[in-house]
Amino acid sequence: MKAKIHVYLKPGVLDPQGAAVAGALHNMGYDEVASVRQGKLIELDLTGDDVEAARVRVDEMCAKLLSNPVIESYSIELE
Amino acid sequence: MKAKIHVYLKPGVLDPQGAAVAGALHNMGYDEVASVRQGKLIELDLTGDDVEAARVRVDEMCAKLLSNPVIESYSIELE
Repeated sequence: MKAKIHVYLKPGVLDPQGAAVAGALHNMGYDEVASVRQGKLIELDLTGDDVEAARVRVDEMCAKLLSNPVIESYSIELE
Repeated sequence: MKAKIHVYLKPGVLDPQGAAVAGALHNMGYDEVASVRQGKLIELDLTGDDVEAARVRVDEMCAKLLSNPVIESYSIELE
């Protein structure tokens, strides 16, 4: 089973990485870029086939390790 | 218009970040995690509404700045 986790900054949290990328794109002439937000996409290969049990465990992994709950949110897709 | 770019390591390229995350999850008792791959998800807010022109430009941005073509691949979604 595969879990896809998207970790992204909460709205309103300053995104220095995104701002740096936007600045670089403007310097390269891509003025149509209004803003840039950068997040992480983490793909886990999991053993077992109980989707609901996996969702609970993956949620724990996100809260404890894969995201910083103070400034980040996350979404989980299980396939 | 919004562009969502997923940048990820090419198959076969060592993923030290993913390996570190997998090791940490195993230490925390999550032995069902067989492997971890970590990538970037970059969201661009773009002015203008010509989707095909935007796709060409975003592809250029990816090739020139947002990804390392030697070790990374990318996919583009336009909304």
